[in-house]
Amino acid sequence: MTALPVTLADIRAAAAAIAGTVLRTPSVPAPALGSLLGAEVVLKLETLHPTGSFKERGALYKLLSLTPEERRAGVIAMSAGNHAQGLAYHARRLGIPVTIVMPEGTPFTKIERTESYGATVVLRGAGLGEAKQAAAALAAAGHLTLVHPYDDARIIAGQGTIALELLADHPELDTLVVPVGGGGLIAGIAIAAKALKPEITIIGVETTLFPSMLHALGRCAAPPCGQTLAEGIAVLEPGQFTRPVVAALVDEILLADETALERAVALLLDVAKLVVEGAGAAPLAALMSERERCRGRRIGLVLSGGNIDARLLASILQRGLVRAGRLVRLRIEISDVPGALSKIAGIIGEQGGNIVEVHHQRLFHDVPVKLAEVDAVIETRNPIHVGELVAALIAAGFPTRLLSSTAMDTR
Amino acid sequence: MTALPVTLADIRAAAAAIAGTVLRTPSVPAPALGSLLGAEVVLKLETLHPTGSFKERGALYKLLSLTPEERRAGVIAMSAGNHAQGLAYHARRLGIPVTIVMPEGTPFTKIERTESYGATVVLRGAGLGEAKQAAAALAAAGHLTLVHPYDDARIIAGQGTIALELLADHPELDTLVVPVGGGGLIAGIAIAAKALKPEITIIGVETTLFPSMLHALGRCAAPPCGQTLAEGIAVLEPGQFTRPVVAALVDEILLADETALERAVALLLDVAKLVVEGAGAAPLAALMSERERCRGRRIGLVLSGGNIDARLLASILQRGLVRAGRLVRLRIEISDVPGALSKIAGIIGEQGGNIVEVHHQRLFHDVPVKLAEVDAVIETRNPIHVGELVAALIAAGFPTRLLSSTAMDTR
Repeated sequence: MTALPVTLADIRAAAAAIAGTVLRTPSVPAPALGSLLGAEVVLKLETLHPTGSFKERGALYKLLSLTPEERRAGVIAMSAGNHAQGLAYHARRLGIPVTIVMPEGTPFTKIERTESYGATVVLRGAGLGEAKQAAAALAAAGHLTLVHPYDDARIIAGQGTIALELLADHPELDTLVVPVGGGGLIAGIAIAAKALKPEITIIGVETTLFPSMLHALGRCAAPPCGQTLAEGIAVLEPGQFTRPVVAALVDEILLADETALERAVALLLDVAKLVVEGAGAAPLAALMSERERCRGRRIGLVLSGGNIDARLLASILQRGLVRAGRLVRLRIEISDVPGALSKIAGIIGEQGGNIVEVHHQRLFHDVPVKLAEVDAVIETRNPIHVGELVAALIAAGFPTRLLSSTAMDTR
Repeated sequence: MTALPVTLADIRAAAAAIAGTVLRTPSVPAPALGSLLGAEVVLKLETLHPTGSFKERGALYKLLSLTPEERRAGVIAMSAGNHAQGLAYHARRLGIPVTIVMPEGTPFTKIERTESYGATVVLRGAGLGEAKQAAAALAAAGHLTLVHPYDDARIIAGQGTIALELLADHPELDTLVVPVGGGGLIAGIAIAAKALKPEITIIGVETTLFPSMLHALGRCAAPPCGQTLAEGIAVLEPGQFTRPVVAALVDEILLADETALERAVALLLDVAKLVVEGAGAAPLAALMSERERCRGRRIGLVLSGGNIDARLLASILQRGLVRAGRLVRLRIEISDVPGALSKIAGIIGEQGGNIVEVHHQRLFHDVPVKLAEVDAVIETRNPIHVGELVAALIAAGFPTRLLSSTAMDTR
């Protein structure tokens, strides 16, 4: 094995430097998730940092390493996400000027949140590539220190402090599962964990749409592309420093698809009572289709961040209700005479269904002119209840179809 | 002061008894919430227990106090909520038969969840009063131990362990704010906290709709009634044991109204990344209109539970977007000729609005026959952006009105 860019001693130094400033996040056993996986599960709650993600660790450690001149000149970074927020938050605390470059067209809420932490946000470039070039140019012109989100020894050392805390709190863990974007998080964790406990298994998780690290390591043909719920790890180019660490120390990289990510976010809300963003839910998402492999293990899941848009969260909750058969859309044929709507509403009520929305129409769709169709969104108990409801409507002479798959897909 | 039913020694005994079985929940600083209140804020995450609330503490301690005969005969309780789940979970673990009585008409999801923890659920009585009587009758007939949700010295001692943990983790706290239902939680916490730190301030929070403890103490004329988001503390009759403790040790009881509860739940999701039920959010809700009083204090908020229905949570998130001006419904008048819809869609897009839903009609509403109306639900950035959007539509000749207050009020 070639020399790694960061050692356990570096990570211990990072831990000492950030102690008392960066939250020492809790590690919480989650028996309900554990029983789903047939394993013992501990969650590392990186969601609870003031800026909602682990990025504060590396960002603060990097800031603390600057010379007085570098501090005065300020720092710059290209990020529309958690790195921007973590860096801005700690730079402001330390009185270091901070500029964040985001691509043009970045959603307003991301700009606003980063500005609220004290950063000057500059919009440059059509995409991440152009924004990155713009950041480099601004750094050179203003003698600013460019803080890379993952390809930096200090950043890697900072993120590695997670493993020190997790293994101090739960030394019994035999497997750690960690999201992989640029690789800074997993590189730091793998270095610390394997140094402390060489027999531990380190599993990385990328998304099916962005298998960038696997691709960079030549283990996967598909290039990264697409729109993923796990924005935080939708990275095109993994780090030069992080790649060899992953190659040397990470036992395996799993892929999570979009459906699994969405379900994992919903499960963490419902069962663990935690708001976790797509990237943070990736470890759980990947393991849910690997239950055989989990059996009997003691698994630490790194929930890397909780920054997910409220709109998206509401949509995930509603789609979860649809999947669980707790919200359905039925299309019911009725004869277009007075009283028919009242009759079907009565049947639905008797069966214990709660009507949320009704759309009654007879202009469109392929129905005879004397018939009409009612589309009703109904709260139900479970799929069995849905079946009973549909059967009762049909028995009463109202042909009924389930349209659920599109019911509440609000986005 | 008369003798209290529970002492610090009892609470320490409870802590020793439940240690290693009940989760020692984390106490987490929340600087973002703190800056909203002008205070230092620490959150006690009782939401993270396997059954989602603090009720496990008292329930387990009570179960551990049973004789072998009592264990064999089993326990019974009347509850459709967190007490039922906490008791069922630990009774099953200990192999103690457990029956839970709920009123007829209890939502199916609550029945299902309690059954999933191993309880036999019996539906009896039209309301809580009748269900309570039924539970007492079943207890007598079957020689079962009736476990009261709050009016029991063991239950109170168990809940008091929260204060031991919170003050061990954060001895600097000078104020604890605690939800008040039957009073078991706040009684236990007040006894422990005042014994450890006599100068600490203990503030209870009830809802405006259920000021039951204030009423029982003769400090408030309004009797409890209504539908509240904070179901967990919607209690009609506070405990006989808990009342004198509250009278003696609780410095003040504040009231939180429904709007404040809803906003607090939304804020905890958005800022603290935590799923908290209405009752658990009551402390934050009450303090948000008491910022003057909070200034400079070191406040521990007991987030008592996280069991909130996914439907309700989705609705709270969407209503939060509406309040923040991030989701609006506009009614736009257009001349009913081809191309008009395309024109307004173009204007909305140019202004950076994202159309989520469009309803185009000309049959109803009070509009001249050659005009039509379009109702559009649009994602926006903030209230200023909404104003710009409306102004642009009006400037282009499309009279536009904001219908937001009802926009996404899905329930």
